[in-house]
Amino acid sequence: MRPYEHLIVDIPDYPKPGVVFKDVTPALADAQAFSAVVDDLSEHFMGRGVTKVVGAEARGFMVGSAVAYRLGAGFVPARKPGKLPRATISESYDLEYGSDALEVHADAFTPDDVVIVIDDLIATGGTAVAMARLVERSGAKLAGLGFFMELAFLNPRPLLADVTDAEVFSLIRVE
Amino acid sequence: MRPYEHLIVDIPDYPKPGVVFKDVTPALADAQAFSAVVDDLSEHFMGRGVTKVVGAEARGFMVGSAVAYRLGAGFVPARKPGKLPRATISESYDLEYGSDALEVHADAFTPDDVVIVIDDLIATGGTAVAMARLVERSGAKLAGLGFFMELAFLNPRPLLADVTDAEVFSLIRVE
Repeated sequence: MRPYEHLIVDIPDYPKPGVVFKDVTPALADAQAFSAVVDDLSEHFMGRGVTKVVGAEARGFMVGSAVAYRLGAGFVPARKPGKLPRATISESYDLEYGSDALEVHADAFTPDDVVIVIDDLIATGGTAVAMARLVERSGAKLAGLGFFMELAFLNPRPLLADVTDAEVFSLIRVE
Repeated sequence: MRPYEHLIVDIPDYPKPGVVFKDVTPALADAQAFSAVVDDLSEHFMGRGVTKVVGAEARGFMVGSAVAYRLGAGFVPARKPGKLPRATISESYDLEYGSDALEVHADAFTPDDVVIVIDDLIATGGTAVAMARLVERSGAKLAGLGFFMELAFLNPRPLLADVTDAEVFSLIRVE
């Protein structure tokens, strides 16, 4: 067992009946576990010339920015609409009911950038697809997508495969 | 000049007329600047036995979690009401019109913890005060508060001094 798996807390019926929420905050608050999560994700993508990491508001900022620091890369926040102060590009994604969108500053990536998407969780894959599209629309190279936890039973990989052939890597897969 | 000062972008009249917003995202997206921000904040608090870093949703997660990683500490997110899945403690703070609140999980800190508050920006000091109170209510030791940028002309330090004698350290002060 990796030194963080036992720190993920199942919350039954949250945020609604029948859903088991995976609370990763105890693994982030534990110094050894947090170091191991960041190191294990970073080491996987090391040596690929990563220049920027992108993570989604808000939980994705926590793992993503630490991985960016570890890799000697910059960090780009993908934010909810209206949160960034300068010109943005936007990608919408589907939710169970309705849709939402993520934005990055229009100058966040250049064609010289080698970018990875890092997030704490991939569930249906909507936010990951939006981030992948934002990177590729900028002309930057998407070098991979890394997740602390993948809810594999929600089958996110085919959705991602429709938009990118970049590698998907998860530390923990929940089947 | 520190290697990140020139990357902070002034946005006049944002989010409303007469306010100059300080956009730090270009300094986070630049690999060298981001490393320097994280190193300069981390080195200031090194050697003090810091066990946890707390940062405020959402921008405070970006610098705070990387500093936590650098210091070998855990990271605790202080979130807007209703975002954390387990039992929380909450502290409200005043806004220009009305008020808001920040929450941490009730078990986020223990009396053995040595905690620093890290945020990208301190303006009037409301969120920093809320985080300081959350740490001290938990019985943990608040070892200091560190900010990428301090809007010193808004005079946040007296408000902080009312609730804690912990040190306040800012990389950039805007007078």
